[in-house]
Amino acid sequence: MSFPKRSYNCGILREENAGNEVVFNGWIGTVRDMGGLIFIDIRDRFGITQLVIEPENQPELAERSKELKSEFVIWAKGTVRKRENPNLKIPTGLIEVLVSDFGILNRAELPPFEIIDDLNTSEELRLKYRFLDLRRPVLQKNFILRNQIYQITHQYFYEKGFLEIETPVLMKSTPEGARDFLVPSRTYNGRFYALPQSPQQYKQILMVSGFDRYMQIVKCFRDEDLRSDRQPEFTQIDLEMSFVEREDVMEVIEGYFSKVWKEIKGIDIPTPFMKMTYNDAMLNYGSDKPDLRFDMKISTLTEILNGTEFKVFADTIANNGVIAAINAKGCGSYSRKKIDELTEFAKKYGAKGLAWMKSTNGEFSSSFAKFLKEEEIENIKKAVNFEDGDLVLVVADSWHRSYTVLGALRLEVAKQSGIMDKIKNDYSFHWVIDFPLLDYDEEESRYIAMHHPFTSPMNEDSELLNSNPAKARAKAYDVVVNGAELGGGSIRIHDQAIQSRMFELLGFTKEDAQSKFGFLLDALKYGAPPHGGLALGLDRIVMTLAGTDNIRDVIAFPKTTTGLSLMDGAPSGVDEKQLKELGISLIKGE
Amino acid sequence: MSFPKRSYNCGILREENAGNEVVFNGWIGTVRDMGGLIFIDIRDRFGITQLVIEPENQPELAERSKELKSEFVIWAKGTVRKRENPNLKIPTGLIEVLVSDFGILNRAELPPFEIIDDLNTSEELRLKYRFLDLRRPVLQKNFILRNQIYQITHQYFYEKGFLEIETPVLMKSTPEGARDFLVPSRTYNGRFYALPQSPQQYKQILMVSGFDRYMQIVKCFRDEDLRSDRQPEFTQIDLEMSFVEREDVMEVIEGYFSKVWKEIKGIDIPTPFMKMTYNDAMLNYGSDKPDLRFDMKISTLTEILNGTEFKVFADTIANNGVIAAINAKGCGSYSRKKIDELTEFAKKYGAKGLAWMKSTNGEFSSSFAKFLKEEEIENIKKAVNFEDGDLVLVVADSWHRSYTVLGALRLEVAKQSGIMDKIKNDYSFHWVIDFPLLDYDEEESRYIAMHHPFTSPMNEDSELLNSNPAKARAKAYDVVVNGAELGGGSIRIHDQAIQSRMFELLGFTKEDAQSKFGFLLDALKYGAPPHGGLALGLDRIVMTLAGTDNIRDVIAFPKTTTGLSLMDGAPSGVDEKQLKELGISLIKGE
Repeated sequence: MSFPKRSYNCGILREENAGNEVVFNGWIGTVRDMGGLIFIDIRDRFGITQLVIEPENQPELAERSKELKSEFVIWAKGTVRKRENPNLKIPTGLIEVLVSDFGILNRAELPPFEIIDDLNTSEELRLKYRFLDLRRPVLQKNFILRNQIYQITHQYFYEKGFLEIETPVLMKSTPEGARDFLVPSRTYNGRFYALPQSPQQYKQILMVSGFDRYMQIVKCFRDEDLRSDRQPEFTQIDLEMSFVEREDVMEVIEGYFSKVWKEIKGIDIPTPFMKMTYNDAMLNYGSDKPDLRFDMKISTLTEILNGTEFKVFADTIANNGVIAAINAKGCGSYSRKKIDELTEFAKKYGAKGLAWMKSTNGEFSSSFAKFLKEEEIENIKKAVNFEDGDLVLVVADSWHRSYTVLGALRLEVAKQSGIMDKIKNDYSFHWVIDFPLLDYDEEESRYIAMHHPFTSPMNEDSELLNSNPAKARAKAYDVVVNGAELGGGSIRIHDQAIQSRMFELLGFTKEDAQSKFGFLLDALKYGAPPHGGLALGLDRIVMTLAGTDNIRDVIAFPKTTTGLSLMDGAPSGVDEKQLKELGISLIKGE
Repeated sequence: MSFPKRSYNCGILREENAGNEVVFNGWIGTVRDMGGLIFIDIRDRFGITQLVIEPENQPELAERSKELKSEFVIWAKGTVRKRENPNLKIPTGLIEVLVSDFGILNRAELPPFEIIDDLNTSEELRLKYRFLDLRRPVLQKNFILRNQIYQITHQYFYEKGFLEIETPVLMKSTPEGARDFLVPSRTYNGRFYALPQSPQQYKQILMVSGFDRYMQIVKCFRDEDLRSDRQPEFTQIDLEMSFVEREDVMEVIEGYFSKVWKEIKGIDIPTPFMKMTYNDAMLNYGSDKPDLRFDMKISTLTEILNGTEFKVFADTIANNGVIAAINAKGCGSYSRKKIDELTEFAKKYGAKGLAWMKSTNGEFSSSFAKFLKEEEIENIKKAVNFEDGDLVLVVADSWHRSYTVLGALRLEVAKQSGIMDKIKNDYSFHWVIDFPLLDYDEEESRYIAMHHPFTSPMNEDSELLNSNPAKARAKAYDVVVNGAELGGGSIRIHDQAIQSRMFELLGFTKEDAQSKFGFLLDALKYGAPPHGGLALGLDRIVMTLAGTDNIRDVIAFPKTTTGLSLMDGAPSGVDEKQLKELGISLIKGE
């Protein structure tokens, strides 16, 4: 098929182009036959331009234009002229193009939904017709943004001396952490490849190989039961550096975010980012990824309630638990019903209950005040800076649960009370550091690595690996913006003996460790440099910059939370013959 | 671990740095104790610098240096000074660094092979210790080159208005063409994802979605029995453009290769590239990816031997076969033994035999001359431009086999006769066009798509789809350099009716086509623009520029031809529990 090729895209013409002869290729938006004039919007990824046909002067064109419908693909020739009624809402709104000829390149059936930004259609239908959904300017913008981010990323890390190196997708299964996707081998029936959850071990190998600085924009995979903000395949900006300590990695990342925010938002992000220990983040914000755009810090009340006769609090203290509170300023007028809803919310995070006190128009009430001494109440009020109009929410539970629940409540109250709206265009970057190295898994009665098993303990805590592993802190760091973890990393273990000790702590036998991580243990024997790195969640970075909470808005062909691709029907059944070649059969009746 | 960080890398110091105080971090190459002086080479990815210790003045350093061995990781401080005996082989050879202090960052066991370029070690051992193999400067260079190519690629396509968009790795299995790698779904037992052989359908969808120009550097997968130059996972530069015809795609690609060769080799590649039809390529060079750096064209002798009484040739002609020859200039002195070897070589490509004639020092001999008339011999001599010193190789067989065998012989003779050596630094770029649309698969008694089922027929041949499909040519094009196909693409079918007709020709029922390619057929209904694209083999581009024939030299963690990763042991066995979750079991006793 030959056709007149566009001389301009549909978003570029301005007043000064009046008089130009132009050719467009694009999609028809709307066709409006106003009798005296026929207006046709033509659209491509660059914009929309108004075409005009004058039926009186152009009867043949007018006749042919009757066939045109939304989403037809056409070419159109014509002359640019100023509009009599400018449309200031679009960049091309000062001009229109008087059509001299046009042709249909392809027809379109009536789409199941309109190609507009404000769409009141189920996400399911949009995903099924993703090829139409992706035509909506709001989504197109996200992928143009995403492309910009790729380019900035490639350029930045190249300039910083990083080498992009591809690591394998078909790799060894190392069942530690989340569940692997498996790929059966046809050549070696009974054996499987795994898709990478991260190229962690390969990038460390690259450091052992002397590549000095590595980066890769890389797909990673986790076969988990998905939450609404997760996808089975996601994209990381993965990097690793040799001969570095924590601050060297941080500096590179701070420079990266500064560049991205400057180029995309025109915003100067102050560097270096603030550093907050994991412990402080939990104590003050109840989260290892606190949103620091607003205050509402947690107050720990355990000490001032020490010796209380109120049984609930006294028992908590006796069990080494914590009593803590947030002061929701200005929420003192919350009804009992609203507080009950917050209690239900807290229970979802594991709280057994929610104690509260509030004051509105000088009227004080509380769920627990009557059980406490006057002095205790006063101390609480002082601790949380209680004023008329405030609502104080108190949780008494184990250390981790108390802070986690209050951290969740803090965000929920901020949402309900309008704080989130006020800060939605702010960006607060910071590091969370000094994470515990290990976490004790009660169910499996063993330690698991909080970050991953290759994370180095802090120098001053390495003795603790033998004496009190639970107390050891890791050289790990997360970069957090607006309450979202955009990435995390660590300085790695480069000493083979410490790495072996780490596997031992995690309950691996020597044989286990060798069979699962042998190649990395081997590599560490042959001159591994000190090294560390980090992985950034690219999808989340795009979401943050695009201002969307829906990860499916930034992935071209996303899957549902059960892993379905509604457009193409994946996953799907396959031939018995294929399975036989792979040496596997389906377990029936499941 | 804290340590003095490098102030310079190991490849950067020159004469003018004499007097500078410097710190290095790197690997020890060799340690040479010359009595009066101790020389230590320190290496990183940027180069090698010589460190010196003077035992007389620095007894403590000298003593400590006794522990140092190859591949230890160290830091070293010192002062740059000019060398008394410069080493002009390395860029830093005019200077050395008198060490004032050093420390060991990590020790190394004795490596199983030396870290040098010229290595006489089995590839198997090198792959097992890939982390050491990759330290060899010759391999490091390949990945530095590969990184350069990534950067040029991202930048070039960005400037040309392409959007990088990621397509899914977990996609729908479409068993047409090579075998898919399958990934069992845990959520939907009995159903499978497939890893992409190419993002073909998704990139076409992106055009339907209006993204105009798409590109991606993307991993693709084929579960085939691997030849030595294939890998189960390989990397494509994948692109697609809307509102284009063949020449538009070609122009973009020619610009790309020009830029790559200019920036990397400093070579100006003339554009536009020569275009050769598939038919001409086969007739003249016996290959759809001819090496045009040297001549040695094939001569077709069928016509001049029409009516011959020599039964072998006469039968070939009667069966619609072809008699053709190449003239290996200067090979007239080849012995019978050498010609027998060439015959064996030809048989590997399916030849039944090889006829020949030669002349050396005026002495003529031939395997077939005695069966032909004098005049026929003379006509052959004229056709192949026969002179004293020449060896003519003749094949009589079916069309495809005759040319294919002679094409292979042409390359083999060029290798043996030293032609390949002479041209190894030349680059010859060209297009092969006008491929047949379909190929008839005798075994399956049906047509298969020569390129893929989405390739558009030539406008002037679209009628042939009904009358004589085998004659229809495709809007397909391959870009060939030095006898290697670096990429291929086509203008796609954007008309839903033609696409349906194509599936019909390929033997799909309507239901089959809908269940396998339904989402693309649907997409074509809703306003698909004319579009086309191409995929370049990135691994092969790197190989061409690096001057290696071994694909494993340009992939960081390659697999063997049976798909094994010797370093990490993938694929490997997995837990019964994991398989059960996936709803699959192993077929025993295979």
